[in-house]
Amino acid sequence: MSPTRTVELEGHIIDSGTMGRCFGVVMDMGGSFEVEEFEIGRHKNAETYCRMKVSADSEPTLQEIVHELHQNGATLSDPADATLEAAPDDAVVPVDFYSTTNHPTYVRYEGEWVDVENVEMDCAIVVETEGSEAPRAHTKVLNAIDEGDLVVTGDTGIRVEPPERPRDGDSAFGFMQGGVSSERPSESLIGEIADAVAETKEEGGNVLAVCGPAVVHSGGADHLAELVREGYVDAISAGNGFAVHDIERDLYGTSLGMDVETMEHPRKGHKHHIYTISEISRQGGIEQAVENGAIQSGVMYECVANNVPYVLAGSIRDDGPLPDTITDSIEAQNAIREQARDADLVIMLATLLHSVAVGNCLPSTTKLVCVDINPSTVTQLMDRGSAQAIGMVSDIGTFLPMLADQLVDEK
Amino acid sequence: MSPTRTVELEGHIIDSGTMGRCFGVVMDMGGSFEVEEFEIGRHKNAETYCRMKVSADSEPTLQEIVHELHQNGATLSDPADATLEAAPDDAVVPVDFYSTTNHPTYVRYEGEWVDVENVEMDCAIVVETEGSEAPRAHTKVLNAIDEGDLVVTGDTGIRVEPPERPRDGDSAFGFMQGGVSSERPSESLIGEIADAVAETKEEGGNVLAVCGPAVVHSGGADHLAELVREGYVDAISAGNGFAVHDIERDLYGTSLGMDVETMEHPRKGHKHHIYTISEISRQGGIEQAVENGAIQSGVMYECVANNVPYVLAGSIRDDGPLPDTITDSIEAQNAIREQARDADLVIMLATLLHSVAVGNCLPSTTKLVCVDINPSTVTQLMDRGSAQAIGMVSDIGTFLPMLADQLVDEK
Amino acid sequence: MSPTRTVELEGHIIDSGTMGRCFGVVMDMGGSFEVEEFEIGRHKNAETYCRMKVSADSEPTLQEIVHELHQNGATLSDPADATLEAAPDDAVVPVDFYSTTNHPTYVRYEGEWVDVENVEMDCAIVVETEGSEAPRAHTKVLNAIDEGDLVVTGDTGIRVEPPERPRDGDSAFGFMQGGVSSERPSESLIGEIADAVAETKEEGGNVLAVCGPAVVHSGGADHLAELVREGYVDAISAGNGFAVHDIERDLYGTSLGMDVETMEHPRKGHKHHIYTISEISRQGGIEQAVENGAIQSGVMYECVANNVPYVLAGSIRDDGPLPDTITDSIEAQNAIREQARDADLVIMLATLLHSVAVGNCLPSTTKLVCVDINPSTVTQLMDRGSAQAIGMVSDIGTFLPMLADQLVDEK
Amino acid sequence: MSPTRTVELEGHIIDSGTMGRCFGVVMDMGGSFEVEEFEIGRHKNAETYCRMKVSADSEPTLQEIVHELHQNGATLSDPADATLEAAPDDAVVPVDFYSTTNHPTYVRYEGEWVDVENVEMDCAIVVETEGSEAPRAHTKVLNAIDEGDLVVTGDTGIRVEPPERPRDGDSAFGFMQGGVSSERPSESLIGEIADAVAETKEEGGNVLAVCGPAVVHSGGADHLAELVREGYVDAISAGNGFAVHDIERDLYGTSLGMDVETMEHPRKGHKHHIYTISEISRQGGIEQAVENGAIQSGVMYECVANNVPYVLAGSIRDDGPLPDTITDSIEAQNAIREQARDADLVIMLATLLHSVAVGNCLPSTTKLVCVDINPSTVTQLMDRGSAQAIGMVSDIGTFLPMLADQLVDEK
Repeated sequence: MSPTRTVELEGHIIDSGTMGRCFGVVMDMGGSFEVEEFEIGRHKNAETYCRMKVSADSEPTLQEIVHELHQNGATLSDPADATLEAAPDDAVVPVDFYSTTNHPTYVRYEGEWVDVENVEMDCAIVVETEGSEAPRAHTKVLNAIDEGDLVVTGDTGIRVEPPERPRDGDSAFGFMQGGVSSERPSESLIGEIADAVAETKEEGGNVLAVCGPAVVHSGGADHLAELVREGYVDAISAGNGFAVHDIERDLYGTSLGMDVETMEHPRKGHKHHIYTISEISRQGGIEQAVENGAIQSGVMYECVANNVPYVLAGSIRDDGPLPDTITDSIEAQNAIREQARDADLVIMLATLLHSVAVGNCLPSTTKLVCVDINPSTVTQLMDRGSAQAIGMVSDIGTFLPMLADQLVDEK
Repeated sequence: MSPTRTVELEGHIIDSGTMGRCFGVVMDMGGSFEVEEFEIGRHKNAETYCRMKVSADSEPTLQEIVHELHQNGATLSDPADATLEAAPDDAVVPVDFYSTTNHPTYVRYEGEWVDVENVEMDCAIVVETEGSEAPRAHTKVLNAIDEGDLVVTGDTGIRVEPPERPRDGDSAFGFMQGGVSSERPSESLIGEIADAVAETKEEGGNVLAVCGPAVVHSGGADHLAELVREGYVDAISAGNGFAVHDIERDLYGTSLGMDVETMEHPRKGHKHHIYTISEISRQGGIEQAVENGAIQSGVMYECVANNVPYVLAGSIRDDGPLPDTITDSIEAQNAIREQARDADLVIMLATLLHSVAVGNCLPSTTKLVCVDINPSTVTQLMDRGSAQAIGMVSDIGTFLPMLADQLVDEK
Repeated sequence: MSPTRTVELEGHIIDSGTMGRCFGVVMDMGGSFEVEEFEIGRHKNAETYCRMKVSADSEPTLQEIVHELHQNGATLSDPADATLEAAPDDAVVPVDFYSTTNHPTYVRYEGEWVDVENVEMDCAIVVETEGSEAPRAHTKVLNAIDEGDLVVTGDTGIRVEPPERPRDGDSAFGFMQGGVSSERPSESLIGEIADAVAETKEEGGNVLAVCGPAVVHSGGADHLAELVREGYVDAISAGNGFAVHDIERDLYGTSLGMDVETMEHPRKGHKHHIYTISEISRQGGIEQAVENGAIQSGVMYECVANNVPYVLAGSIRDDGPLPDTITDSIEAQNAIREQARDADLVIMLATLLHSVAVGNCLPSTTKLVCVDINPSTVTQLMDRGSAQAIGMVSDIGTFLPMLADQLVDEK
Repeated sequence: MSPTRTVELEGHIIDSGTMGRCFGVVMDMGGSFEVEEFEIGRHKNAETYCRMKVSADSEPTLQEIVHELHQNGATLSDPADATLEAAPDDAVVPVDFYSTTNHPTYVRYEGEWVDVENVEMDCAIVVETEGSEAPRAHTKVLNAIDEGDLVVTGDTGIRVEPPERPRDGDSAFGFMQGGVSSERPSESLIGEIADAVAETKEEGGNVLAVCGPAVVHSGGADHLAELVREGYVDAISAGNGFAVHDIERDLYGTSLGMDVETMEHPRKGHKHHIYTISEISRQGGIEQAVENGAIQSGVMYECVANNVPYVLAGSIRDDGPLPDTITDSIEAQNAIREQARDADLVIMLATLLHSVAVGNCLPSTTKLVCVDINPSTVTQLMDRGSAQAIGMVSDIGTFLPMLADQLVDEK
């Protein structure tokens, strides 16, 4: 007789696709299922309930199927506790550790479902049982694992809640959509993004802007600086290059040697980049340079002037780098992780590298806007399964003035 | 009391997403629904049946909802005949004509469901009732409508069958997927495409190759010519440019003036293109040039030598054009339409314009392979809702030798 | 003894690269040269003169070299008349016909240099000697050749004047540059384009806008309509799709079924496209539809209302098409050719097909602006050798509002 | 009277464009010039000599012009020694330091021209005068500057030798060309690349392969592994992701969870990536894992087995990372710099980040091949001014099997 397990699904599982996906999982993985109870949500707002018996040829196959169903929002009718195993060494997880999704997750400990804190993809879950009144569970990236950490292994006792399709029809924010269309009216879309920023700020939320160097080359830096000054941006995540270009623009009026106003290339302009770095090194860093009056405008200036925190993460293509750049990638990731956890709305502006780094740390519940001129970049960034995301293929140099116009000038 | 209508859904409606989509339609359009009967497919191969009562605030809204449900595979429990109206003039359809999808479609005439022939997107349906034993229905593009044609109008009496998700797990051919990934192993994917071609030929099917000029520039023409010679290609759909480049290659060894073997640019090479056109014009056309021995190799040569029909559709960017090019776009579309209807497998090779033209004429049931180096082109071509399609972002100049190698040399 | 010929170069031949290119031609083609006289332009505005003796192994090689030097601006010291041969048949040129570049060209007839009218790439040159006081020379595309036309053959007696590098330093308009950078400040670049449009209009020049459907999808149509209304656009070159989208927007508020303001997709919206076509067919065409009051806004409306002529060129991917669409590609090319000849500034907006068609007909002296979100499209369009061209990789949906803002609102 | 300076140009300065560029520099920067002597290279292999007097309105302008002429290969008739200034602090250069190009460079010290070692772009030049028989000059990146280093400042006493256009006509390796065409025959181009690799190895040269993760996803890893095993690759420069994917493929047969042979996605496959990292961490690193027999095939395996050194440079988007990954970007750059200096031929395979990092360290004299499916990536990588470079827009998953086929199987 084939091994069998009973699982339950509940919620708007039909139009969210959950039910179709779960049936698909069983079929694709060579199992079979029998629906035992099915209570359909007969009205628009009613939830659906489905209980089914899943069986497979072997216990391991069944376990894989059940695990996969878990990842899609099903729960076992008769759940067991999660299994825990101590990490054998620093940065080494137990062999069969559970690797997280970016959806809200719960682990069962002594019969209770414990909410996993700081949900993030591709992490281990560590359960802390001592010293606290109630047990706590949180994610840890592999390199942060300490010897002895109690790590969740296997598939049992874990529940994941993939986001549901919102009830209220159309919205510029797409639901779990990977694709991206450039055939959308740009002005209207920018209007929706401006609304999302304004709404987030009204609700006391936190807006994180992830910025690539093209923000400066394309002439958008002034407008981003304005958004920082006016309080629409709560944190900046960028690289050494972005900061250098932004400061070069203040010191010399150029970005990578081109005058941002006149588009002329002053001879020697290509040296402004490296001169900017050496100047800021001489000053001791960005903050000191602002304080000394050496930097007088731009995004970095407004960050310092308005206490907007920034992370400059290093990369192997950096010149310099500036003293403010975090050159160790693990340290930089940790700094980015803090920014990501605080953010309610993340706006990714013309950078793949930094956007992927931030995106890796985001739970699926954080709102996301991604703007890039390269459709492949937008597609790649939208593929991470955010519940609410807008992908826009546009020119950052025209996007930013129009966004600032909507937010600041037409206020 | 709100107007109400009862609709039915049947088949693998859960994992094909049909049911979720239908529920979504009602909700998005402001209607409500009550499920009256629901018989779930309890096993992998069992079909599901769902009957629901849909209501809306007004009769027009309800009709729109019902229409939309129809488009997604629902049928009215108590169907009425389709309404027919005579076309008022040549190329002019009645105001409320039904515009087709590319899925199998049926219209109800005198109580019977009549299969719509030559299914194609964005057409009118014309019903012929006289002179034939049974009534017939078929699609007509707008410009082909004759005064007096009986055209289906409104939403009633029309049934559409969107394709179902195949039962058998993984396949390189994706199901109704718009997106495309370049992160797939190229050799394995080419192997699958070779298998699909071989299988189509074994089953007596018809393979249509749609070719852009890049096939020649990239050095792939020899390999495509081999596929034509060996009987793997039953028809070619291309433009004037493709044919000119292919023949230039035979006459001069160059394509757009570059030697395809040595990659040198013989001076005056850029004139080979226009010289080729004038030479073929002098010969009276491609067939005559082959017969006269003026063309001795290449794709066009193999087509003539092996009686593989081709359509060369004109475009406003053509030089010349060759006497064989159909310069009127309506005439060219009609020629392409014939090719598309005959095809069981269509392979789109590095051309957006011609692939869209062919794709416009294809029913959703024709297998599709699309290869282009530009991901946006592949995405756009995959977006047309083929039930079975492979999109591959690759270099046509390496794709074709590897495909020919798999089909011909490793046979 | 090797055959030898003496050629002369004159002008700013050093910093325009002409001299380097000519020396390169001789070396690359296996010839050798001896400089006989060299009078360098010793000051910034002085011209340089160079006379050199070119020799090669054989007379045919020498002729090829000399021909190539001609194409690059060299002239024979002792020029002969051009050779003329009668076309043997309609649309058939003599075997050795001279195929044109897009640079200003002269042919020598009875000892006089005759200016070639309507310079266009890849054409034949026809000389008319009878019935006019002075002989005239003009280009003809191959399909326009009439039996008996006197066609220039061979290489002798032809002089080409490639454009010279402008003397006055930086300008947003690049000189003969194929490449394109997205790393330029968008607002400043749009400012330069606005200046070029305004300047062209002030000088009584003619601005031709070449428009793709994305102008409408992206929400830019209102702004283009404004530019037409305000007199900044003298002619529109587009396809059936552009016109249909623009009119759909007026009739239904949607483009390809998406509401351009709210970005909602009204159900049935995807039918608006085909309904629009059938409606305009019913009206008898765009002009009639405007006169009947059926169309009340948009680019096509403004064209009719302001007597701005338009060409809608057909293509094999058209739905419909509208009665106004020229479905024969040769006829359409001829209509485009007229537009191109009249234009002083051509602005290509998000279309490859129509831009290539227009670009094919332009002399190298017409100013060119090309805006597209796809860098490959911009690169391809800039590769045609315009003496003054701006290529901009941007979002047409943000470009057009900002351009209109600069030209109209900030006037 | 305007300040004046005399400069000289020598070599194939006409057809290399050097002379045109130099005249352009003077004109663009508002100077004027008078040619005093001009000895043209009257034959193909003869060099040209030009001496000119350059003047400008002010001494600073003149100095800028002269500096720019220097950068383009001109030398002062009456050269002075370079000025040296001690670095005021670690990682801080004197204000007016000379920032290098990637061309061969010489500085004048006590009347002698000293060759600058390890030429690299955007560095300072440090002159060492003590403790060695002869003075030495070499480049230092900003962060490597030590307090007291004698750094070259200003423009005097510096000579740069931009590469000359090769004499011998066509070659697949382009000369100083930024652009890239996808309209080239792929098989022939791969043949040229194979020849360049074979030739480099025959001459005892060093081939560095820079690899992105797509090498593995696209199914190319086996073929690259073969090239390593057969001795065609002397060093690998990559990131954590590449190594993880390559090892995942060995451990599980998948890359990012997709089976590279069958293209199926085993459920749980998406966890293979993170499991691979934890497994190698457990083993203590790649070398240990190979020695323990845990890794048995793939690129990393062949590197260890054949003593081919590799650098895995960390990035903020890394999972893990592997213990072998250098997480500090400055350290990683230094490791990459060593690889770059040793290389005679660099092949960049489907990675922008790592290719830019390597490219930053290369002198303009190193041969370069760059293959990527994204034309923008290829363009960006070719823009760095290599004297001999091939850019190819292709699919790495078809490129690598065809390259291996040419090098190994057809040997």
